[in-house]
Amino acid sequence: MNKIRTVEAAEQVGTAVIVEGWLQHHRRHGNISFLVLRDGWGTIQIVCENAETIAELEEIALESVVSIEGTVVAMPQAPNGVELHNPSVTVITAVSHPLPLTINKREIKAALPTLLDHAVYANRHPKRQATFRLSAGIMAGFRQTLNAQQFTEIQSPKLVASATESGANVFELGYFGRSAYLAQSPQFYKQIMVGIFERVYEVGPVFRAEPHNTSRHINQYVSLDVEFGFIENHFSVMKVLESVVTGILAYLEEHYQREIALLEVELPEIKRPFPHIHFAEAKALIQQNQPELATEEYDLAPAEERWLGEWAMEQHGSAFLFVTGYPMKKRPFYTHPENNNPAYSNSFDLLFNGLELVTGGQRLHTYSSYLEALEQANLPTEPFETYLEAFKSGMPPHGGFAIGLERFLTQLLGFSNVRYATLFPRDINRLTP
Amino acid sequence: MNKIRTVEAAEQVGTAVIVEGWLQHHRRHGNISFLVLRDGWGTIQIVCENAETIAELEEIALESVVSIEGTVVAMPQAPNGVELHNPSVTVITAVSHPLPLTINKREIKAALPTLLDHAVYANRHPKRQATFRLSAGIMAGFRQTLNAQQFTEIQSPKLVASATESGANVFELGYFGRSAYLAQSPQFYKQIMVGIFERVYEVGPVFRAEPHNTSRHINQYVSLDVEFGFIENHFSVMKVLESVVTGILAYLEEHYQREIALLEVELPEIKRPFPHIHFAEAKALIQQNQPELATEEYDLAPAEERWLGEWAMEQHGSAFLFVTGYPMKKRPFYTHPENNNPAYSNSFDLLFNGLELVTGGQRLHTYSSYLEALEQANLPTEPFETYLEAFKSGMPPHGGFAIGLERFLTQLLGFSNVRYATLFPRDINRLTP
Repeated sequence: MNKIRTVEAAEQVGTAVIVEGWLQHHRRHGNISFLVLRDGWGTIQIVCENAETIAELEEIALESVVSIEGTVVAMPQAPNGVELHNPSVTVITAVSHPLPLTINKREIKAALPTLLDHAVYANRHPKRQATFRLSAGIMAGFRQTLNAQQFTEIQSPKLVASATESGANVFELGYFGRSAYLAQSPQFYKQIMVGIFERVYEVGPVFRAEPHNTSRHINQYVSLDVEFGFIENHFSVMKVLESVVTGILAYLEEHYQREIALLEVELPEIKRPFPHIHFAEAKALIQQNQPELATEEYDLAPAEERWLGEWAMEQHGSAFLFVTGYPMKKRPFYTHPENNNPAYSNSFDLLFNGLELVTGGQRLHTYSSYLEALEQANLPTEPFETYLEAFKSGMPPHGGFAIGLERFLTQLLGFSNVRYATLFPRDINRLTP
Repeated sequence: MNKIRTVEAAEQVGTAVIVEGWLQHHRRHGNISFLVLRDGWGTIQIVCENAETIAELEEIALESVVSIEGTVVAMPQAPNGVELHNPSVTVITAVSHPLPLTINKREIKAALPTLLDHAVYANRHPKRQATFRLSAGIMAGFRQTLNAQQFTEIQSPKLVASATESGANVFELGYFGRSAYLAQSPQFYKQIMVGIFERVYEVGPVFRAEPHNTSRHINQYVSLDVEFGFIENHFSVMKVLESVVTGILAYLEEHYQREIALLEVELPEIKRPFPHIHFAEAKALIQQNQPELATEEYDLAPAEERWLGEWAMEQHGSAFLFVTGYPMKKRPFYTHPENNNPAYSNSFDLLFNGLELVTGGQRLHTYSSYLEALEQANLPTEPFETYLEAFKSGMPPHGGFAIGLERFLTQLLGFSNVRYATLFPRDINRLTP
């Protein structure tokens, strides 16, 4: 007999099939038993009217792994429009211990810490399962969009010799008698790789030793990194980023309808080109409208970002807004300044519903400009020796950006905490599970 | 005018185009200059007969970044069958410092340490560039094959609370006042995720603090990990692995002809199913033919693997050979024993040209079997508490495997050292570039 996945049942009406998975739900109504079986992709309802089988089912604990043979029947009012009838059930792995929490209701009732303590099990909940399938979809959409533009995938070292990009917030470890550091980003390597492949991307973990316990920070996250050469300025980078965001959302739309429906996500409507506003103009606008929000001179406070998000939706009907030209003071040393006003930079943030989702920009590309920039930043050149070799050997104008995978998912699903968008988050208090 | 990539020139014969990239080579022959421009994908030859342009070209140092306008001309004897004629050249970024080594010959002459010291620059060599493009191809072929089989991609934590899988060879770091460890593999997480998605894969870095300086070891490598449920035994896993290896090679064949030709790779001929031999039978065979090779009772020494590789090629015409049933003594605690002979295991290695390329097998899946296995291994249960929660909550029979990306590339290209297959290797002596 044909073993199928639950999500394939609708194409098999009238045939006898086998489904295998976890016994998610079991409810008896007089002489009828209603089961829900969950597999790695979805669920299916099973209706049993045979007294002997019902008696057998009474013995099977929830979350036991079972194999069920039955006939697929169209049933418009059932979830997914089909049910399995006349089942016969075989237990593959019986559960005999109490389960840590309830995962067969529409929502998980547990508080966040409980959810995270039992993430190994709680992520089996259909909505958690769908959440992390969307996470896979974001990665796939990212890669597909960039592959179509001839980008090459790289894998860069995560162990580095010096805490270069920013001295603070870096994890240090012993490395055969000396110190190594966990990479805070693949920034230097992706730039170096522009000298080899011109257009590169990487999907991988980055590590930030930030000692903050906020709803927006975790200490390991997945960074979707892009860098490419032969650009005119940061607007060339924003154009690729716009195609990537659009490509990801189109990919989810095409391949994840079931998850989107289950999670009741409204994918943001895309208006191209995304609107953009210069940092100075954004500040002026806030000054005019909500002066009390501006708490920093050279950066945007979260409240300012939120206000700009609302403004972009009102003015442009767009969930996405580029803020360009951030002050050089607040940007890393490799940032390219604005040609006509070097206090500002050829950099940008992309806000998504009023939260910074992506940071990017044009980088310096000549060796001499790096020497100057390091001097201005009071940084020694020695730790940057191999990085600088790329610029000494000829590099084109280039730029790039980094999208935080968990942050994208958080904003897309409207989570109140980035930990909801992370399978097994790492934070200042949490190293397990 | 149309900017094209070098590899697109053959489709543009007769038209005027712009190519941009690095000035890789420049040779003057009387009144003619021959240039080679390299971009992120390949090279193109440019022929210049204009005296003024030739004089300009004399001023441009190798590896300078240039933009060249010219007409594509079919030229069967030229590499790729085309040349660019009547060029006009604009310098985008001039090189003014001496270059660290020569990368415009057919081969890099530098010794391995020099090559690695200057990897930032040396990886621009067309053969290095092609090598790491194949690396991207292996990842893409891996994902494509598994996506087609409904696997879901995951990203697991790289910072873990205890050095669980094997106590030794793990990097330790300070984590907000306590110790954390770098994950040696996503083994536990990929198994846990079988409880959520049934079929999962991950492409990501793993860390091994092995204090060895051999040609086969690096301390960070990229692991292509797979795990899935509802298997019969390790032969179910081998079947998926066979499809993955076949899928990767087919993907390279389809998308990387240029790189394969440049590197003069002979992709191994695939004979399906891959031959397999039980560990005990392999040992008996070696005992019969080359008894002096057997130096270990419970494992295969590298020389034995090489002999078996030759045997597989002679007997089966196959570059790939499964060795099954490795003794339990040498396999980790989560390994499933053979049903009829529990001294052996439901595990396997896949040898590729006589080198272990992949390790995999069936895992234990019941909670009670884990408790027994930990006791037998003299391991405490406490550090495994969250891992065990998955098995307490119902897990199907499952298994998986892990392919070392760099090792695959090493064997495919016949490198003498895995470092040649790593962009920026990390070893006991090397943390840069």
